[in-house]
Amino acid sequence: MSADSVQSLIDQLHDEAEMDRPNDLTPDVGIVMGSDSDLPTMAGGKGKRPGAYAALADELGFEEQTNYTDAPESRFTFETFVCSAHRTPELMYAYAETAADRGIDVIIAGAGGKSADLPNMTASIAYPLPVIGVPVQEKSVDSVIGMPQGAPITAVDAGKSFNAALSAVQILARQHDELRDRLVSYHEGLQTEVGEASRDLHELGTPGFKREHWDE
Amino acid sequence: MSADSVQSLIDQLHDEAEMDRPNDLTPDVGIVMGSDSDLPTMAGGKGKRPGAYAALADELGFEEQTNYTDAPESRFTFETFVCSAHRTPELMYAYAETAADRGIDVIIAGAGGKSADLPNMTASIAYPLPVIGVPVQEKSVDSVIGMPQGAPITAVDAGKSFNAALSAVQILARQHDELRDRLVSYHEGLQTEVGEASRDLHELGTPGFKREHWDE
Amino acid sequence: MSADSVQSLIDQLHDEAEMDRPNDLTPDVGIVMGSDSDLPTMAGGKGKRPGAYAALADELGFEEQTNYTDAPESRFTFETFVCSAHRTPELMYAYAETAADRGIDVIIAGAGGKSADLPNMTASIAYPLPVIGVPVQEKSVDSVIGMPQGAPITAVDAGKSFNAALSAVQILARQHDELRDRLVSYHEGLQTEVGEASRDLHELGTPGFKREHWDE
Amino acid sequence: MSADSVQSLIDQLHDEAEMDRPNDLTPDVGIVMGSDSDLPTMAGGKGKRPGAYAALADELGFEEQTNYTDAPESRFTFETFVCSAHRTPELMYAYAETAADRGIDVIIAGAGGKSADLPNMTASIAYPLPVIGVPVQEKSVDSVIGMPQGAPITAVDAGKSFNAALSAVQILARQHDELRDRLVSYHEGLQTEVGEASRDLHELGTPGFKREHWDE
Amino acid sequence: MSADSVQSLIDQLHDEAEMDRPNDLTPDVGIVMGSDSDLPTMAGGKGKRPGAYAALADELGFEEQTNYTDAPESRFTFETFVCSAHRTPELMYAYAETAADRGIDVIIAGAGGKSADLPNMTASIAYPLPVIGVPVQEKSVDSVIGMPQGAPITAVDAGKSFNAALSAVQILARQHDELRDRLVSYHEGLQTEVGEASRDLHELGTPGFKREHWDE
Amino acid sequence: MSADSVQSLIDQLHDEAEMDRPNDLTPDVGIVMGSDSDLPTMAGGKGKRPGAYAALADELGFEEQTNYTDAPESRFTFETFVCSAHRTPELMYAYAETAADRGIDVIIAGAGGKSADLPNMTASIAYPLPVIGVPVQEKSVDSVIGMPQGAPITAVDAGKSFNAALSAVQILARQHDELRDRLVSYHEGLQTEVGEASRDLHELGTPGFKREHWDE
Amino acid sequence: MSADSVQSLIDQLHDEAEMDRPNDLTPDVGIVMGSDSDLPTMAGGKGKRPGAYAALADELGFEEQTNYTDAPESRFTFETFVCSAHRTPELMYAYAETAADRGIDVIIAGAGGKSADLPNMTASIAYPLPVIGVPVQEKSVDSVIGMPQGAPITAVDAGKSFNAALSAVQILARQHDELRDRLVSYHEGLQTEVGEASRDLHELGTPGFKREHWDE
Amino acid sequence: MSADSVQSLIDQLHDEAEMDRPNDLTPDVGIVMGSDSDLPTMAGGKGKRPGAYAALADELGFEEQTNYTDAPESRFTFETFVCSAHRTPELMYAYAETAADRGIDVIIAGAGGKSADLPNMTASIAYPLPVIGVPVQEKSVDSVIGMPQGAPITAVDAGKSFNAALSAVQILARQHDELRDRLVSYHEGLQTEVGEASRDLHELGTPGFKREHWDE
Repeated sequence: MSADSVQSLIDQLHDEAEMDRPNDLTPDVGIVMGSDSDLPTMAGGKGKRPGAYAALADELGFEEQTNYTDAPESRFTFETFVCSAHRTPELMYAYAETAADRGIDVIIAGAGGKSADLPNMTASIAYPLPVIGVPVQEKSVDSVIGMPQGAPITAVDAGKSFNAALSAVQILARQHDELRDRLVSYHEGLQTEVGEASRDLHELGTPGFKREHWDE
Repeated sequence: MSADSVQSLIDQLHDEAEMDRPNDLTPDVGIVMGSDSDLPTMAGGKGKRPGAYAALADELGFEEQTNYTDAPESRFTFETFVCSAHRTPELMYAYAETAADRGIDVIIAGAGGKSADLPNMTASIAYPLPVIGVPVQEKSVDSVIGMPQGAPITAVDAGKSFNAALSAVQILARQHDELRDRLVSYHEGLQTEVGEASRDLHELGTPGFKREHWDE
Repeated sequence: MSADSVQSLIDQLHDEAEMDRPNDLTPDVGIVMGSDSDLPTMAGGKGKRPGAYAALADELGFEEQTNYTDAPESRFTFETFVCSAHRTPELMYAYAETAADRGIDVIIAGAGGKSADLPNMTASIAYPLPVIGVPVQEKSVDSVIGMPQGAPITAVDAGKSFNAALSAVQILARQHDELRDRLVSYHEGLQTEVGEASRDLHELGTPGFKREHWDE
Repeated sequence: MSADSVQSLIDQLHDEAEMDRPNDLTPDVGIVMGSDSDLPTMAGGKGKRPGAYAALADELGFEEQTNYTDAPESRFTFETFVCSAHRTPELMYAYAETAADRGIDVIIAGAGGKSADLPNMTASIAYPLPVIGVPVQEKSVDSVIGMPQGAPITAVDAGKSFNAALSAVQILARQHDELRDRLVSYHEGLQTEVGEASRDLHELGTPGFKREHWDE
Repeated sequence: MSADSVQSLIDQLHDEAEMDRPNDLTPDVGIVMGSDSDLPTMAGGKGKRPGAYAALADELGFEEQTNYTDAPESRFTFETFVCSAHRTPELMYAYAETAADRGIDVIIAGAGGKSADLPNMTASIAYPLPVIGVPVQEKSVDSVIGMPQGAPITAVDAGKSFNAALSAVQILARQHDELRDRLVSYHEGLQTEVGEASRDLHELGTPGFKREHWDE
Repeated sequence: MSADSVQSLIDQLHDEAEMDRPNDLTPDVGIVMGSDSDLPTMAGGKGKRPGAYAALADELGFEEQTNYTDAPESRFTFETFVCSAHRTPELMYAYAETAADRGIDVIIAGAGGKSADLPNMTASIAYPLPVIGVPVQEKSVDSVIGMPQGAPITAVDAGKSFNAALSAVQILARQHDELRDRLVSYHEGLQTEVGEASRDLHELGTPGFKREHWDE
Repeated sequence: MSADSVQSLIDQLHDEAEMDRPNDLTPDVGIVMGSDSDLPTMAGGKGKRPGAYAALADELGFEEQTNYTDAPESRFTFETFVCSAHRTPELMYAYAETAADRGIDVIIAGAGGKSADLPNMTASIAYPLPVIGVPVQEKSVDSVIGMPQGAPITAVDAGKSFNAALSAVQILARQHDELRDRLVSYHEGLQTEVGEASRDLHELGTPGFKREHWDE
Repeated sequence: MSADSVQSLIDQLHDEAEMDRPNDLTPDVGIVMGSDSDLPTMAGGKGKRPGAYAALADELGFEEQTNYTDAPESRFTFETFVCSAHRTPELMYAYAETAADRGIDVIIAGAGGKSADLPNMTASIAYPLPVIGVPVQEKSVDSVIGMPQGAPITAVDAGKSFNAALSAVQILARQHDELRDRLVSYHEGLQTEVGEASRDLHELGTPGFKREHWDE
């Protein structure tokens, strides 16, 4: 039996699943994490590198949908939930079970610790929806990646929820050329940075580059 | 949605949970494993060391209960199921959820692979029933033991379901002096073996001991 | 400069890329591996578990396309190549560079050893096509999964090319309901096996199950 | 031969064991640790997460018994000792040997370092009393968990003495429904926190949640 | 297709390769790294130990060449570039492919992360030019060193680009006695430091040495 | 309380300790191991390399003493016992506690598994007698070597009880020049083997050496 | 003091060093290994992959020189010795100390075990001659690669003496175009194999390739 | 050839070895370390725990001998040197080779890094003198402990030079009852601390103990 605050979320998920909303008004990507202490890794901040939130919202033009029946203007959206596999198994179960009916196309699931069960269990229950696992810590990699034959999950490297978001959009881009273009455009920005750093380092020489680019 | 063979087990577990059978006619220990390929580790055989089955049935006088409504004569019994966390999450959920109502006192849950989620998920769902996790492989240890704060599980070493059974009976022995005596008696047998090997090795000398005890 | 046998493949890939074939006549999934010694892991056999070939061809009804201009009858197909990152970097480059134009929707790339660069380099060059990396050995996991921010790849567990194929089809199933149904149907088969093993183990009891199911 | 300060403790333990005190006036849980430098891990503080002390005293209503013959008012109590396996092996021996006679029902034993022998030796000597091992450091896990067949111990994850206390109370709850209720009540509190964080994160959206809940 | 800033570097490298400059006016050692964030490891600074730059420029009298057609006065020179294997595979390819024609004799290639592909791919493409790999982090060692049979690379320990530079000069010294002398002279300096520390520690005694040499 | 076979050994050890036998009639080296399954590692055989027995008895002229009151003719002797830390803690305690009084000068203690407590506990109890720990398996190394400050043990590499015996005799050789000579003589034999193999390999060439020395 | 068989080798090495033989009559590559049990890894055979011997003698046209004053006809040669760092430190010292004077240009040094000191010590003593270390076992990698700053060594992956030979010849090829050509020619052979396997696998399809190329 | 500062130490060691000084005027324990940066670990300070210096000088009454011909008043003494295996192999060789003749009874040799060769090489060259290896870092353990059969060394845990000193004195105590007494007396002090902490923690209770003993 779940606490009230959990049960109301479970009920809401089931209600939404029965609404049969048109796909372009539901979130395309669902982000779940085992604890709100995983948020810095999943969304950036508190000294962590940029996360899935930055990739989706800042680089690729997605908006976060915070109300299932009131979609943002953007065509492409995502939603975010906390679901603890070990403290709220019923909530995790409900999220995974209703995801397809709620219109989600890809799930990004992150968890930390050595028993990072959320991504795996979500992938098992939400099957055949694709789930991309994010090991929140290095020690979570084995637990996330080690699914048995017949139970698919794919995973990114520890802490790299940013890349998980890119991978999720690569999946969506199979159907949406607009997203393919956004991915390419993001990539050109990345390359430009490398090219400029390379030319500066080469032409200024190592001491010159340090003087120019380092604070010290 | 689960396949028929799974659904019928789930239904049966829920039916049994509602029967409200007297505790001395229900299994005391529930053994679950992620796959029947874990059986050699959980029960011995196929080149594996003796397992939980041997500890319970051979050393401590438990009987295996194979029909919920038809208990064996022994006062102390256990039952055995396969529940795959990743292939049959609903079955796992149903087993853990009904365990207390079905009269189980301790669960021994074994799983292999790097994502050995069965013991953890069972402990989370069956809480506050005590669950002893058995990592079926060395690489399963981290996944089994690494539960977050607030979600208790205890674990034995990789492959040592025999010890998990001893630990389960140590728990039951808090209430049943008879079981305490059986544990002590088992232990004396163990000690006698060590004592005799030690005396033989010491008194025969190393070459003498090898001649006497080794086949080669 | 590449050896003749390699150069002719490179030329062929570029020729095919320029043909602009309709998408339903080109392979949906491209499987590449670093060496033909990876074939047992990527396709099963020689003591290895079933691989991507078995998942696609046996479980999900795909056909292998061995001639680019002569597609098999099935709507869903895959192709297979060997591309060594370290011995034939030009071939790897050409495969990844032409993949999208050759109509590939998802690439499954497997490599062994500690420097398993093929999946990563393929993902970098074929970007934004989704690439699923298969570490052929346990020691290949780190090298496959460890891509830097901005360079997405997702990976399955060591040796599990079977699951990589399921994941690839999960991606394709976003657009093809037919594939979603095949994935569900495969899964029901899996569950039935677990359900039957669980009932047998429970009802026959451990010794009975061993007698019935074990050879020894 | 032991130093005086150690010998007087050993003598006291043996004296208490002979007192034959009624079980509801003796400590239910005995906590031992290899060094007082393990106290932050075993009891919380100095930057460590909450420990066994917090679980028992703050969450589950146990009182610490500091005088064997003068029990606190609470029905459920625990006691705490330092016993170094390597510096005071006689004290460790005496504690484990007298534990059952002193009325202890479960021992929680924590030790750090790579040779974390205290939990194992305590479990071997106090047998068949259940002992829950707490590896004080990550590097202590192997040493604590690796007991040979026939010598049972169960262990929690590194540093998680809080969970060890929950597990100990799960054992006691087999006999005391009052403790089962306290465990359930503690768990509802945990779930409520997750449910509220999940709703907040979902409805405020990621940037809103950060503004509301993060200090930065 | 590469971003402009990258493409102009690629074009420049190919142009330089066709110039056929005399070997004593081209860089002897080419240093490439996967990101300018590797510069502290490859060149020292920001809390990192002295790197390849210090070894070449400070200890062994090399000058950094920052303009291909305008060589410094020193006979022995090196150049430095950033080439990301995963973000700019075309640039990496172009650098490695043109290195021999641009007059480079040895390449030092450093990369970090678990997928440290730059050294390996550079060695594969620049073959048969010798490439010395520098794993920028401990976790990069496996990826750098693990090349398959037939694809040679040699590597130094994690972070030791200083030693990679010494090794590169050991290779050049096969042809240039002048460099052999510089290596020997550098080594004598090293030995003198050890000899003086040893005498001081021995003769002052441990407390005397601490007083003399430690700040505290 | 110990089983009879164990108790009689404990009594015997205490009796012998009180005999006050002259040192040249008592064993110089005491070998203890956690189980007779460790004997192949501690004494050689069953596919294991030569062990402590071979080093002492075959290479250095020690005899095994199997009866405390009836010493062999050789001046230098050793004895062998099985003492399980986890199954017979009282026997381990008695052996370590009486060792000095029984005339032992050095103890070699070997144990396997991840909780290899015998060497550590023996060193703690027998202190200040020197104890050389032998990790019987690779996974035993950490547990054997990891003693806390103030509790000395020294250890050899996993499985190398042969070297432990050499180290034990190096200790005894501080007092006995005869043993120093035996150690030197053993070493010359070792060197001769290397010298001859080196000359053969060099002069026959690799194929010639293989033909001469390899069976295949 | 060394055994006679070792001393005569030491003397011989010093004698040869004083002969001042012309460089084209002395071995170009010196191969040393810690034990003749390393020969399968260093030279192939006994189930090991092809080694340095195969690379030099079979692929690159070197001859093995077995008599210092009687060079083979080939311009490029190598020699082979066993030098144990731990059993014959004087021999190791003599080999490294005389290598340059004996006309060696590059040393390939292989050793196994966790204390694989031979490559490191050889590199330290033979400095500034380049030394390529071969860790004979996976567990030898750390010991071989981990040299401190100022003491250069480069290493190949565990067991890959074949690649060490290629790397050694890459060094020699700086001065000898003939060797550069041989390296390129060897590489074309490698590529041809990959190209042919790739075409076969692609065109025959997976089952067809298995039928054609696998024995089973 | 060595730098002057090194050569003068080598000459001095050889001169001292020929002096044939009486054993009670020479150092009993020789401490060598690979670098003066190892001094904090070998002698304490700079945030490291107490080292061999503290054990010998503060706990066991040894004096440091800083002039070979001018011994301190204490009967028991030690000396300290820096000898880098990789930067000054000749000095290491000279120290080990002359140790026995210079009257050293036990050597404590510490080194850091992954190639911690000093303890092993010293043990090989100084054989049959006992050498106790101190891995200065965790990553040095394997390299120090992994000696091949026939080449004995014993080792303590990473960083525990304090224990190495206790072990060295355990060896000397075989001949000197005075040292045995000092070891016992040191141990009683250790035990007293544990006993007092245990009583305080038990009797004050956990919060009381924290108030009394913790600063916070």
